[in-house]
Amino acid sequence: METNKNEAITSRDVDFAKWYTDVCRKAELMDYSSVKGFIIYRPYGYAIWEQIQNYLNKRFKGIGVSNVYMPLVIPESLFNKEKEHVEGFAPETLIATIGGKNKIDDPLIIRPTSEVLFCEHYAKIVSSHRDLPKLYNQWCSVVRWEKTTRPFLRGSEFLWQEGHTIFATEEEARGNALEVLNIYDDLGRELLAIPFVKGLKTDKERFAGARETYSIEALMHDGKALQSGTTHYFGTGFAEAFGITFQGKDNILRHPHQASWGVSTRLIGSIIMVHGDDNGLVLPPQVAPIQIAIIPIQQNKEGILAKAENIKNELEQAGFRVIVDSSDRTPGWKYAEYEMKGVPLRLEIGPRDLANGQVVIARRVDGKKEVVANENIVWEVSRLLKETHDEMYAKAKTFLDNHIIPVKTLDALKEVVDQGGYAKMMWCGSRQCEDKVKELTTATARCLPHGDQKPFDDKCGVCGKKADKVVYFAKAY
Amino acid sequence: METNKNEAITSRDVDFAKWYTDVCRKAELMDYSSVKGFIIYRPYGYAIWEQIQNYLNKRFKGIGVSNVYMPLVIPESLFNKEKEHVEGFAPETLIATIGGKNKIDDPLIIRPTSEVLFCEHYAKIVSSHRDLPKLYNQWCSVVRWEKTTRPFLRGSEFLWQEGHTIFATEEEARGNALEVLNIYDDLGRELLAIPFVKGLKTDKERFAGARETYSIEALMHDGKALQSGTTHYFGTGFAEAFGITFQGKDNILRHPHQASWGVSTRLIGSIIMVHGDDNGLVLPPQVAPIQIAIIPIQQNKEGILAKAENIKNELEQAGFRVIVDSSDRTPGWKYAEYEMKGVPLRLEIGPRDLANGQVVIARRVDGKKEVVANENIVWEVSRLLKETHDEMYAKAKTFLDNHIIPVKTLDALKEVVDQGGYAKMMWCGSRQCEDKVKELTTATARCLPHGDQKPFDDKCGVCGKKADKVVYFAKAY
Repeated sequence: METNKNEAITSRDVDFAKWYTDVCRKAELMDYSSVKGFIIYRPYGYAIWEQIQNYLNKRFKGIGVSNVYMPLVIPESLFNKEKEHVEGFAPETLIATIGGKNKIDDPLIIRPTSEVLFCEHYAKIVSSHRDLPKLYNQWCSVVRWEKTTRPFLRGSEFLWQEGHTIFATEEEARGNALEVLNIYDDLGRELLAIPFVKGLKTDKERFAGARETYSIEALMHDGKALQSGTTHYFGTGFAEAFGITFQGKDNILRHPHQASWGVSTRLIGSIIMVHGDDNGLVLPPQVAPIQIAIIPIQQNKEGILAKAENIKNELEQAGFRVIVDSSDRTPGWKYAEYEMKGVPLRLEIGPRDLANGQVVIARRVDGKKEVVANENIVWEVSRLLKETHDEMYAKAKTFLDNHIIPVKTLDALKEVVDQGGYAKMMWCGSRQCEDKVKELTTATARCLPHGDQKPFDDKCGVCGKKADKVVYFAKAY
Repeated sequence: METNKNEAITSRDVDFAKWYTDVCRKAELMDYSSVKGFIIYRPYGYAIWEQIQNYLNKRFKGIGVSNVYMPLVIPESLFNKEKEHVEGFAPETLIATIGGKNKIDDPLIIRPTSEVLFCEHYAKIVSSHRDLPKLYNQWCSVVRWEKTTRPFLRGSEFLWQEGHTIFATEEEARGNALEVLNIYDDLGRELLAIPFVKGLKTDKERFAGARETYSIEALMHDGKALQSGTTHYFGTGFAEAFGITFQGKDNILRHPHQASWGVSTRLIGSIIMVHGDDNGLVLPPQVAPIQIAIIPIQQNKEGILAKAENIKNELEQAGFRVIVDSSDRTPGWKYAEYEMKGVPLRLEIGPRDLANGQVVIARRVDGKKEVVANENIVWEVSRLLKETHDEMYAKAKTFLDNHIIPVKTLDALKEVVDQGGYAKMMWCGSRQCEDKVKELTTATARCLPHGDQKPFDDKCGVCGKKADKVVYFAKAY
């Protein structure tokens, strides 16, 4: 059945979780399949992902990354080579045991991540300092057999990119992990209008097999954090496990240093929960598959549709993504439809506008309308889209800044994370104190934020011992 | 170990199969993984695929296609819904039976193709004539558990696009299958420099579940055909099996008509075997990841490298894909490297060229060299690439035309297909005659070619009965 667009969705404040899934489905971003946790990315949702791909492909190319494609399956025997890694992923693997009606001797794990495949390949193609560095990336889906699933946020299958890089030195490999972390941060600021908190993960929250994990964290409207991307420095651990060596200019054989990094369709979840409102999705203009929806009013009157198409062509030539909806639905139905879909600008053109040489443009972000003369349409659309982006980013940044609260005690921390937001605490660095926070509040250490490491106290907020690290704690998706 | 580029590869005429795999590996298009039939698409091979994706995405968009992403897995119970379809694919499926350490009740087939997933989705989202047509496409990998595998030609996993479309009428659905067949044909002519034979498959060679299958067939250097893409008209068979209906403007409930179509990384195999030579790959300029390789000679002399970089920038600004190889290898090693990789043009710049304000440009396709004045480089590169494309296409077209031989008897047919090429035969249309050809010659009916259906005899070349269909038979990959 077609979703009724005009039917109200659950309010954010009444039931945020229900509001979220309502938006996912009614904005036609996704649909469920018959297998739990495996979703269908519908055209509108997939087109957002394609915008993200375009942005990142350009940025990755700029630092010398090549795209590749690795096999979907990993033999169990290969997967078991790096101990910490396998322990992290084994409990949630999907395993194929039958091929062409026969039992498979070495069962095949559907890739949950591809470190071991890249390592096996690197072991074959890297032998000299001349072969380094290699910066490879792949766009694919991965499978993690999850018990609790939610569209885009946690799926048994999701789409992502995974970069796997290999260098002669520690400095280069760590530098790559940090460089890509900054690219992800730019993606937030320039494309998604999302300010991320970026920083180093605690040892407890590190990726299985990594020496250091860095992350970008977004703060949702309900005050929970969403880890939106990670980059890892691996040291030489994988290289040792997989026998990857290279001969330096000095003829000495060494293990290379590795890094990996990824963002996924989880970013779509971030966009929804950072920007959405009670009328549905609100899309940042840079990532919106449709930037302007043109709605003809009394479209059967002479000249209206032709004018709408003319404006569409003019805007398309200027590089904007535009549609004209000339279906037989009412204008009211169409307004609700494109509101639900979060299209940044709605352009209305009716008989009076036609006569007066003008159109009406309404902003999705606040409903404000402007009358624009025909000759100024391209310029005004450009301005309104830019303003929309800047205002969305500024609003999200203010919300974020207002929800980073310094705390000096566990009680204060609990109050902050219960209300929603980051509790900023001095931390002694012990796993014990970190565990205690989680046990008492369910909040986790999101990261040791870059750019906010200036101590505001000298005692750990939990144990009172000497502390020089600033950590953000929050409840998280 | 790094492949030694200067080591000679097997000659095409000595062992074509060995030549093929030598080229695949030494041109660094792919590598083997530890699971049979699952290959690694290395940067150079994957970049060719990305060029094909770019071309097709634009063309698909031009006919209103949207990209989507469907789940990787299909429950066995769902897969079994369309009888003919399941019989065609069941013998070669990879099946996951364990998820998160537990047995899965309804085992999950790793998609060999996604008809049933699209049908299940269409059944949910199509209910009115207003919901039609839908033209969806996805880029993904599929898995078919094959006994005999060869890089790009037949893999247990391969990359492809699969379009799945649904319409109110038979005319529209068949029209879509034919329209996309023409897009594939354009892809051959405009991008790959490959002339395809296109036409209708016989019932015996139809896709499992289709009413009509159309294909594009390429002729390899060894005279064997390679099916390089197919489009299918399904009728209402899947719609009936999956309960997809829509209410027409007349309020009557009907089953919609469907089509599907796909090309895969097999196209890379076509490129290799149509254009390659004893020095390796020869890439058509439009699809070549690197169109011009600039080789500095005596690069330590002042001004050489700077000049090489200047030319690179100039060519890149003109829209070409260029590299400068300033590694410490010898020029001879580099010549062999880019020859092996089939880079269309090599641009040499040495001290004398620098002094004379010129460069030397060599064409991969025939080794011809030209001296080009600095101020003409962009123009000459543009001309040489265009000429290269046109000559490659013309050469392949002549080869194809010379290998379509009319035959009136089974003996004549056998002689033609044994030597290599298409035997063009009049056919009565019976399955029996088709089977007999295969039994005696191993050749199969490739298609009833569009544009070549004029009868040249009135008797079937096998049984002698009345015949009005022209069929091309050939041995095939």
